Amino acid sequence: MSSNSIGKLFSYTTWGESHGKAIGCVVDGVPSKIKLSESDIQQYLDRRRPGKSKFTTQRQEDDKVEILSGTFDGFTTGHPISLIIYNKDQRSEDYSEIKEKFRPGHADFTYWKKYGIRDYRGGGRSSARETAMRVAAGAIARKVIDMKIKNQTKIFGALIQIGNSKINYDNWNEEFILKNDFFCPDEKIINTWQELINNARKEGSSLGAIIEIHASGIPPGLGEPVYEKIDSDLAKAMMSINAVKGVEIGNGFNSVYESGVSNVDEMGIKNKNPIFYSNNNGGILGGITTGQEIICRFVVKPTSSILSSKKTIDINLNETTISTKGRHDPCVGIRAVPVGEAMMASTIADHCLRYL
Amino acid sequence: MSSNSIGKLFSYTTWGESHGKAIGCVVDGVPSKIKLSESDIQQYLDRRRPGKSKFTTQRQEDDKVEILSGTFDGFTTGHPISLIIYNKDQRSEDYSEIKEKFRPGHADFTYWKKYGIRDYRGGGRSSARETAMRVAAGAIARKVIDMKIKNQTKIFGALIQIGNSKINYDNWNEEFILKNDFFCPDEKIINTWQELINNARKEGSSLGAIIEIHASGIPPGLGEPVYEKIDSDLAKAMMSINAVKGVEIGNGFNSVYESGVSNVDEMGIKNKNPIFYSNNNGGILGGITTGQEIICRFVVKPTSSILSSKKTIDINLNETTISTKGRHDPCVGIRAVPVGEAMMASTIADHCLRYL
Amino acid sequence: MSSNSIGKLFSYTTWGESHGKAIGCVVDGVPSKIKLSESDIQQYLDRRRPGKSKFTTQRQEDDKVEILSGTFDGFTTGHPISLIIYNKDQRSEDYSEIKEKFRPGHADFTYWKKYGIRDYRGGGRSSARETAMRVAAGAIARKVIDMKIKNQTKIFGALIQIGNSKINYDNWNEEFILKNDFFCPDEKIINTWQELINNARKEGSSLGAIIEIHASGIPPGLGEPVYEKIDSDLAKAMMSINAVKGVEIGNGFNSVYESGVSNVDEMGIKNKNPIFYSNNNGGILGGITTGQEIICRFVVKPTSSILSSKKTIDINLNETTISTKGRHDPCVGIRAVPVGEAMMASTIADHCLRYL
Amino acid sequence: MSSNSIGKLFSYTTWGESHGKAIGCVVDGVPSKIKLSESDIQQYLDRRRPGKSKFTTQRQEDDKVEILSGTFDGFTTGHPISLIIYNKDQRSEDYSEIKEKFRPGHADFTYWKKYGIRDYRGGGRSSARETAMRVAAGAIARKVIDMKIKNQTKIFGALIQIGNSKINYDNWNEEFILKNDFFCPDEKIINTWQELINNARKEGSSLGAIIEIHASGIPPGLGEPVYEKIDSDLAKAMMSINAVKGVEIGNGFNSVYESGVSNVDEMGIKNKNPIFYSNNNGGILGGITTGQEIICRFVVKPTSSILSSKKTIDINLNETTISTKGRHDPCVGIRAVPVGEAMMASTIADHCLRYL
Repeated sequence: MSSNSIGKLFSYTTWGESHGKAIGCVVDGVPSKIKLSESDIQQYLDRRRPGKSKFTTQRQEDDKVEILSGTFDGFTTGHPISLIIYNKDQRSEDYSEIKEKFRPGHADFTYWKKYGIRDYRGGGRSSARETAMRVAAGAIARKVIDMKIKNQTKIFGALIQIGNSKINYDNWNEEFILKNDFFCPDEKIINTWQELINNARKEGSSLGAIIEIHASGIPPGLGEPVYEKIDSDLAKAMMSINAVKGVEIGNGFNSVYESGVSNVDEMGIKNKNPIFYSNNNGGILGGITTGQEIICRFVVKPTSSILSSKKTIDINLNETTISTKGRHDPCVGIRAVPVGEAMMASTIADHCLRYL
Repeated sequence: MSSNSIGKLFSYTTWGESHGKAIGCVVDGVPSKIKLSESDIQQYLDRRRPGKSKFTTQRQEDDKVEILSGTFDGFTTGHPISLIIYNKDQRSEDYSEIKEKFRPGHADFTYWKKYGIRDYRGGGRSSARETAMRVAAGAIARKVIDMKIKNQTKIFGALIQIGNSKINYDNWNEEFILKNDFFCPDEKIINTWQELINNARKEGSSLGAIIEIHASGIPPGLGEPVYEKIDSDLAKAMMSINAVKGVEIGNGFNSVYESGVSNVDEMGIKNKNPIFYSNNNGGILGGITTGQEIICRFVVKPTSSILSSKKTIDINLNETTISTKGRHDPCVGIRAVPVGEAMMASTIADHCLRYL
Repeated sequence: MSSNSIGKLFSYTTWGESHGKAIGCVVDGVPSKIKLSESDIQQYLDRRRPGKSKFTTQRQEDDKVEILSGTFDGFTTGHPISLIIYNKDQRSEDYSEIKEKFRPGHADFTYWKKYGIRDYRGGGRSSARETAMRVAAGAIARKVIDMKIKNQTKIFGALIQIGNSKINYDNWNEEFILKNDFFCPDEKIINTWQELINNARKEGSSLGAIIEIHASGIPPGLGEPVYEKIDSDLAKAMMSINAVKGVEIGNGFNSVYESGVSNVDEMGIKNKNPIFYSNNNGGILGGITTGQEIICRFVVKPTSSILSSKKTIDINLNETTISTKGRHDPCVGIRAVPVGEAMMASTIADHCLRYL
Repeated sequence: MSSNSIGKLFSYTTWGESHGKAIGCVVDGVPSKIKLSESDIQQYLDRRRPGKSKFTTQRQEDDKVEILSGTFDGFTTGHPISLIIYNKDQRSEDYSEIKEKFRPGHADFTYWKKYGIRDYRGGGRSSARETAMRVAAGAIARKVIDMKIKNQTKIFGALIQIGNSKINYDNWNEEFILKNDFFCPDEKIINTWQELINNARKEGSSLGAIIEIHASGIPPGLGEPVYEKIDSDLAKAMMSINAVKGVEIGNGFNSVYESGVSNVDEMGIKNKNPIFYSNNNGGILGGITTGQEIICRFVVKPTSSILSSKKTIDINLNETTISTKGRHDPCVGIRAVPVGEAMMASTIADHCLRYL
């Protein structure tokens, strides 16, 4: 029940600091007899890995995951799966300037107020580096879902907006998503996004982004009213990702522009099965999946670590300014795509174990 | 750890159906020696009470709450506080048509798929009637916060948008909020909203809304990284309210239109204390309160119970149509304001008990 | 996650004071479509009811339970079941003497130290009256088990020792248990026990007891290593009963007198199924059920409310003496039998939902 | 909320198999700014370490613990503390015979029934090797208690009985406990115990034991009625230790031989403070600490791994016999002493964080 744990039946606990020896997690609740190897996990970590492209941080981490427990002869045993990734490229000298200054927009000030001690090397526990372990746990969650729903589900995310530049849904090409550095489904927008990122870098600034996660093939019935609705659990999971400031399901905030008449998803029968004629509710009604595609969106604010000089204070309560050098993502939302997928996967896995 | 419970140290469990004998909740974790009477709770229930104005459902419930346990000589004892409200105006005849049909946009279909049995009288447990007990628990949460933070906090909500009509923040008048039927802070928009509601009614339709909740006077340090961040817990709490489809903190989804330079909340010193020059982050950094005002917004979709005829199916999988008569809120978002306040209060109370 | 709740998937929360308006509980996690009426619960409450025989307290409570939610047309709906029993025979005048004095051996002193306020009318929340709701929840747990294990289980308890008088296991007669006032399986010992109780009463004293709970028909596989072993959960559940000071499984403390050779339960095959040639481990190995009968024993200390005068102090820290008048059980262990059964049932129901 | 986790505010999760790469745990909820180094933990691990004396298993493990996260500059940061111990002396060849046979009295059969897969190398997760991490977490728990109760507590355990040989309490010498291989407080009984162990070994058998844990200096008020009483949590914690079959508090099962008059702990005033004239209740009343010494006892059954041949079955349901060779503790209760201390410490630490 620790605050570094998430999930009820499929649950995991993460640990480790950005610039410590290692990061890791313990995944519990995984049923036995699921085939699982390190490469099953590694493929998802590779998507999130820093230093992959020029549009993300230049920190070089190979992020090689090691399974320390919970499998035997290549299969899960039903016991906790411990994963570890050793940090390689800590370079803590980059962080000397922020030792006594609070980076505005970061957790530096709140951690210091709350804990009275702060691992200033890259944010310690508040760093987005923690999300690597979410991706690792998410890979195992996918295995659990596949076991429960017989390999019929698909969970994937896409970046749909950077700054003021939003994709055109008519150009949606799912296959393209993994073929570009932005997890973008709209090939025609790529050039604009590259330019936006390059400009933001030049200006010593950064950009926000919106990510959309889809889960299809999910049967109706997942979700536990009234406080463990699947959308409640998704909201909690997505909001816990670094820099996320909003979460929505289906039409989300745009629902306000719909009328009751236009927003309702009408139903009918096709091949003797219930169908819906629209999916404004994003696959969830009353906190329970309908069987339609689950659609969840979240916004990632512009990276707070920027080169431009900003007013701040230090731990001795002196006014000062700060310009965050170092290797930062100009748009941290890009690497949040696989993290959002992972949170979707672990939330669904948890509810699969509770219901199926 | 039931799915009808919320909170870790300040926690409550709700029970009861829309058209059953009664609804109630059990609030646990309340410290001893807090003065508490039924009127402390009743005042908040009265804000949410149905039948109050012509803009909400005409169901008549006086919603008189009774404390059954947990107090002695007018003070809390540290033991569970059981609250009950007997249902008065069930009128279940109104619901005969929906006995075998699924109201689209409602939980009717998903409850039936999940549970195989359905209290068709007004939605049973999926009805917004459940939220009365959230408001009751929220009233007790406010008492806990007052004890912990010495009566310095203020938690209140306002309706900021109905349909496409959004308030003008320049007209914000906090005192006006409790003086109108919409919890609206902008006196100049009232006529428009009345007209919108009346039109929606005439057209057999309904309207969505956006609610904004403020909490001020909250000290820095509340929130438990990384999975029990206070914004994660708020997102979960708000998303669990009936018909909510999105939650955001501070700038929320609009953060995507900001640059790193413009979005960062710079800091300085005033009277020897740290201050922020803006509050784009809504009072939360790294999942921990900064000491600034917490600002949370959520969207409520247009009420799904509408008079207009819509395509649906019945429990025997026949196609049919439905037109939901009965006494429904044309804009259920209005009565969601006190519910959102209550969820804010209980989330903060929970984190107060964990940190202060 | 409140401290007045127990169980993970089958869970319940109790509330109410000995001399308040009512006591109650909310049972959550009950699957839908189980036939359930008040009489299903009442039969178990009647076993525990005070005032039933001259060997228990003379407080007269009919303990009529009412279901307030969670059922529809006689079946469970999957939603929380709220139960209430109104207190009838509070007679709080009996408790005037203990208003300012701490009854030694009771929770009076510790509640006062912890909470700084105390419902002195009969112990408030620390009274054994709370256990009525455990019995009610246990009745529902039995229904859940019957659904999951197809009516093949039997859970029952017996009193095996009062004071220094222990039953002879050779005389064990299961049918006799519900035919006497002591839940005693050994008809030959009844006279001795009656005499013991009468003497204790005359001497203004009281007696301890040992209760043994059996659960048969339980399949192998229930229990979650390593911290939610079924014996861990049973130990927690039994120890939470008022006045219980010890819990053991199978041979329990007598294991220390066995050798490894004599204590091991050897295995063989019978009708192609695994069998055990003994049950020293009480049906549990490694925290998981073996399929054998689960056997759990617990000790209830002599009732602390006694007529004899004892040294104590008052809330103003003056030395004084106290003699507890009122209507008390001379051997509270007797009425603990149905409570122990209920805790066994709810623990097994919880693990059924987690595994089966 | 995983089953490999324990504790609510001070909580930890263990992972790792007896013959896997490593074992470890993640401790969460530790307040920041506590001085903590590996040697603080190592001293307690050394007490439990196998191969220390000729009376325990001859497996050679140096059990060197490494802190991977959660500290900075020698102090805790408030974030999860990850600990790891690499296994050194796995020697899995010893376990070839048990690959297909179930060792009677062990978890082999139940794990196989529940999980359908079994790490046969030394029991995998069911091995007592897991308890090393409990001792490590317990060392951190002691640090938390010291911070909360200002270094005034003392938590220690002793072996009070092996087989039928029980210590004489009149010979109790606390300092002697850490000076002998048995954690025995009675110097005069040592020779008898050595002889018992040697005989058990010669006979290919093993012995049970009773352990007594003391915690002094604990203030009144710890424990949360009614289901998280401190004795309930202790019972759960102790029963979760491998091979434990019973737990008792204070007089425990002997309470049944006391009368209400003799068993009550009378109270008085000394130096203006409340005192008790006896401690039959083991420092706990109504589930809350009284301020007296907490006394908890548990029984460890004779080691099930014995050289004597016993009847069993194999995974193909053939009858067979087994004689467990390898390096086993002739009385596994000896090494359970530091484990029991650790469970006491972590339970108290958890309740300190909830109350103090």
